[in-house]
This record gives sequence, C-alpha cells and structure tokens, in this order.
Amino acid sequence: MSNQKLFNVAVVGATGAVGEQMIRLLAERNFPVKELKLLSSKRSAGTKIRFKDRELTVEEATPDSFRGVEIALSSAGGDVSKELCPIAAAAGAVCIDNTSAFRMDPETPLIVPEVNIDKINEHKGIIANPNCSTIQMVLALKPLHERFGVSKVVVSTYQAVSGAGAKAVEELWRQTRDVSSGNDVTPDILPVGSLPVKHQIAFNAIPQIDKFLDNGFTNEEMKMTRETKKILGDDSIEVSATCVRIPVAYGHSESVYVELNSDFDVEDVKRLFADAPGLVLQDDPSRQLYPLAVTSAGKLETFVGRVRRDLSNPRGLHMWIVSDNLLKGAAWNAVQIAEYIAIEQ
Amino acid sequence: MSNQKLFNVAVVGATGAVGEQMIRLLAERNFPVKELKLLSSKRSAGTKIRFKDRELTVEEATPDSFRGVEIALSSAGGDVSKELCPIAAAAGAVCIDNTSAFRMDPETPLIVPEVNIDKINEHKGIIANPNCSTIQMVLALKPLHERFGVSKVVVSTYQAVSGAGAKAVEELWRQTRDVSSGNDVTPDILPVGSLPVKHQIAFNAIPQIDKFLDNGFTNEEMKMTRETKKILGDDSIEVSATCVRIPVAYGHSESVYVELNSDFDVEDVKRLFADAPGLVLQDDPSRQLYPLAVTSAGKLETFVGRVRRDLSNPRGLHMWIVSDNLLKGAAWNAVQIAEYIAIEQ
Repeated sequence: MSNQKLFNVAVVGATGAVGEQMIRLLAERNFPVKELKLLSSKRSAGTKIRFKDRELTVEEATPDSFRGVEIALSSAGGDVSKELCPIAAAAGAVCIDNTSAFRMDPETPLIVPEVNIDKINEHKGIIANPNCSTIQMVLALKPLHERFGVSKVVVSTYQAVSGAGAKAVEELWRQTRDVSSGNDVTPDILPVGSLPVKHQIAFNAIPQIDKFLDNGFTNEEMKMTRETKKILGDDSIEVSATCVRIPVAYGHSESVYVELNSDFDVEDVKRLFADAPGLVLQDDPSRQLYPLAVTSAGKLETFVGRVRRDLSNPRGLHMWIVSDNLLKGAAWNAVQIAEYIAIEQ
Repeated sequence: MSNQKLFNVAVVGATGAVGEQMIRLLAERNFPVKELKLLSSKRSAGTKIRFKDRELTVEEATPDSFRGVEIALSSAGGDVSKELCPIAAAAGAVCIDNTSAFRMDPETPLIVPEVNIDKINEHKGIIANPNCSTIQMVLALKPLHERFGVSKVVVSTYQAVSGAGAKAVEELWRQTRDVSSGNDVTPDILPVGSLPVKHQIAFNAIPQIDKFLDNGFTNEEMKMTRETKKILGDDSIEVSATCVRIPVAYGHSESVYVELNSDFDVEDVKRLFADAPGLVLQDDPSRQLYPLAVTSAGKLETFVGRVRRDLSNPRGLHMWIVSDNLLKGAAWNAVQIAEYIAIEQ
C-alpha cells in the first residue's frame, strides 16, 4: 500500500485501559498514521507513551486539540465524549467514540464491522462503538438472525473487572492479596465508582454493573437490550440481560439463551458460527473444548461454544460466548472501524 | 426437650468439605446425638475430629459400620452411597444421602424441607438430598409455582469451587497465588477430576461442571432439570441450565429467568419471597442491596434479589439467588431432614 493515504489520528483517553490497547493496536496493525496525538485529562497529561519507535507525550484534551485531526478514537468517559466528539467532528475528524454518549443517537451509526458495516457512511462525524458485552453477543446473533430470525434473547454475563477500568483491576489484585493473606478487604471502586456502596469483587460475584433504572434493570443491562436492536436493525428482537461482575481480569463470558423464529439444526448453527466473520467456534464436549476467558484474553476474535438446543423449546438455543472485553469489546472494534474509514479514503 | 430420644448417628465422608459442615451443624444445632460415628475411606481413617467436647476418631466405612446406627448422613460420593446406603437402610437406619446416587430413584424421596417435607415419610430407608444448585433455586420457585404456576426456567449459575470438594478449593488458592506472583498455572482437578482435560479456575469462568451428555448439557445441568421437576412434583416445569464454575470459594449464585402461567405483580412476588420459609429477600436497588456470595457464605438461609419483570414477556420474571452451597446446598439441608426425623420419633 505505497499510495496509502496517511492520517492524523488522535486517541482521547490515551492513558486508560482501552486507550492503551488502541495505541498498541494502531502500531501492531500498522495503521496508516501520519501524526498520532495522545490526549487525556489534565491529571494524566505529560505521561510518556511509546508508539512504534517514537516516545510520545500525552497532552491535555481541549477543544483546540482536534485541529488537523482526521480520525479521533475517544474512550475517556461519556461526559468527555459529549463535549469533545462534536468539536472533533466540527473540526473535520471522524470521531469513533467508545462511550455510551452517542450510541442511541439516531444520527450516529452504532457499528460492529462484521455485522453492520453498511451503516458506516451514514455518520455525521461521529461513529459509536457499542458496549463490550453487546459487541460479542451480536457477532453470534447476526448469523442466527439472518438465517432463522431471532425473537427473544435472555443473557447472563460473567464480566471481567477490566471493563471498569485499570484502577478496578488494581482493586481486584489488591483484594485478592488481602483475602489470601487473611486481611480485611476494603472495597473502594466496584461495583460503581460514583455510587456510595462498594462491594468486594475478589472471590465474589456482583450482580450490578452501572446504575439501576426504575424498571429494576441496570444501565449495562439496558445497553445490551437497546444496542442489540439498533445494531441488528430490528426493534422486534427482545433482549433481557442480567449483567454480573466476576473476579476475572480480562475476558467477558456470556450465557445466552435465544429463541428463533424457525426450526433449526444444531449442526447447521455450528457451521454458521464457524463461517461467521470475527467468530471462532470452540465446541467439542468430548475434548472439553469451549470458550474460556483465560484463553480468549489477548485475542481479537470472539469465541462461541456450548451450542445446544433448549430442552423444552425446539426453537430455543443455548450458547456460551467469550471475548476480550478490551479488544473486540472496545479497542479492536474501534480500530477496525478506523481501518474501514482509512480504506475508503 | 428432656424427654427427647437420642440417636446413634453416622456421618459417612466425615473428612470431606460437606462432612465437616455436617458434624459442625450437628453440634451447633444441638442435635440429639447418643453416639456419633465418623466414617471415611480407608485413606482418611484415623483422622481425629472434634465434636462438642469430645475428640472422635474417624473409622473406615465398611458394611459392618452401620450396626445400631439410626440416622446416617452420607456424603462420600455416589459409588460409596450406592454400596453403603442400602446396607445402612437394611440395618435399620434412615440414610440421608447427599450424592446423586438415589435422587431420581422413584422409591426415594428427594427432600427440601421448606418445599416438600410432606414426602419425607415415603422413604424406604433412604432419603436423597438434592444437588446444591437445585436446592437454592427450588426455594424461590416453590412460592411462585404455588401462586402463579411455573412453566419454564432458564438458569445460569455462578458456582463456587467448594462444590467440587476441599481439594478444589486448595487448587483455587494455589492457582490464585501462582497468577498473582506471575508463575505458570498447572490445573490439576477442575473442571472434573476424573476427566483428562483440566482448566484454570483462578480468574476464569469454566462452563463445565460434571461430565457432558449426548444432548450437549452436563450432568450438573440435567440434575437441575430433573430434580426441580421431582421436588416440585410437576413434570411440566421445563428447566434448562448452564452451569458455570467461577473463582469463588463459598456460595453459589444463580441468574434465573422464570415464565409464569399467570399475571403477577412484582411487589407481590417480593412479598411472597419475604414470607417464604428459608428465603431472605435482599432487594433494594436504591441501597445497592442484592444477594452476594461473600455475604451469604456461612449462613443457613437462601437469599433472593434483583427481582424484576422481563422486558418483553409480561409473565417473565428475572431474579438472582445466592446460598452457601456447603450449607443449605448440602450439609444444612441434610441436617434439617435429620431434625425432622428426630422430631417425628
């Protein structure tokens, strides 16, 4: 690609868990970068970060930061995105936003490249990256919906602590050490940093991710409901989720029950999954092969297994989906979108 | 209870994780013990165990061990129970068996005292204690089934490592130390000791408990299906489970979706749960109150929360159920059954 156009790229939230992976992927994928601008809060500005053979200094993100920027990858929290993404877009950049700020905005496409890349050109300067737990699920729902039609989804998640940020991972390690050495545990961040009550995550399962809504579901659960409909472009798909944080650092797992609109053959479904882009079928009970968080961490793909028919509903299907929440669930999906933009120009 | 009859009690599997809790509960509950016989495999025979102010020596369990025994609590594995429970019963004992050996035997009642104590007198010398993950679920299903009728259950479990025995808990601690100090992890027991492939449990989620069957479900999952029907006395209740081991030492959590036969009010359901024996309602999103493994461990009760209506099915209900798998899930349910037997005599 000697004639490849090069891009001025900005990463907003460069010192966060997702930002770190975005920078690593831009380097590893050899993304056509002309200049890379690393942006963060005032507090983290000045941090040095290596990008290929260069050492870059993180700058404070301000409205002026986006002059000349063509692609901005934003992952610094919803409030930052709400302020800065429209400014980046107005400055001529395409802003790929990893927060929930614009996901349900009707003017903003919500993109999982393997599922709905056809919507990418509908953007008006901002493209939203879906929630981590949604992305890996829609990768498996897409071929099912195309072939059989999906009417209902009941999902229970087993979500990694890194989804709550690097400090939450530190909290997991610290609590793990405290429990192991018989010390008291003092929860500090999880389940939700901004809420008053904290719960132990080490050797525990916390059925709360994000804040509760009046209907008894959490924000995280409702993201899975709303975003799935939008990405698959079908409001008739019903999704009810229970989102749970477990003491895993990297890799979200999901137990998914799906009701289809027509009859299916389990072996056909496995073949569909094996052929689906971005998806790897790991399903062989005789060899105890199924997706696992520890084997999926660090991988770009999403893994699916334990595929089986429901015991009472012949159109019901159970499966187990695992992916690295910081990669396909966040940084990789965003960089993938950036790659599509780069190829098109 | 000065006229209380005293019983010769035997605990088979006295040195195991559940046996240990059975002995502790017999002491704490002041069970009317005349003589307590502690039985184990030849390997563990000779172990000294404290019971109240006495130190007892564990003996090897043999067919002769049950002479004079009136109540036997058995938790030494299915094969041991298959051999010894009929011998104990023939010797005149009531054998309360915590293994799966007799659970589905039509002649053997499968008892959760709060749910179906009325079946206890149908025994012919053996009473089966249900699977841990089933017990805590049926405690919540029972009042729902009585009031509304339960038609379908989809459950995903978050099961503690102690359900696989004391050695599996040691493995969790060992692997946790290895990961924390950057050492390689060498899985040795989980997911199933007798199968060739082992998986890391520390900082992971393993979607396999027990062996796989031809239908793609595991034995553990099918136990939840079959035992729920038997305990609730209704074969029309459909249960499909996904059973998952997570890095928690004590306390099983369950994400349960239930379809009811009639309309319900969520507040009514919460009141039903609050009033149900053995069940404690912990459900206040505004205070971030819901059941947790770490707060349920060591307790005899089962905890239920996150009660909410499904987003698409007005007769669908979601809830989160947690209980100590070694206590209500095993030792406590068995000792409860023994208490009913003691009271009746």
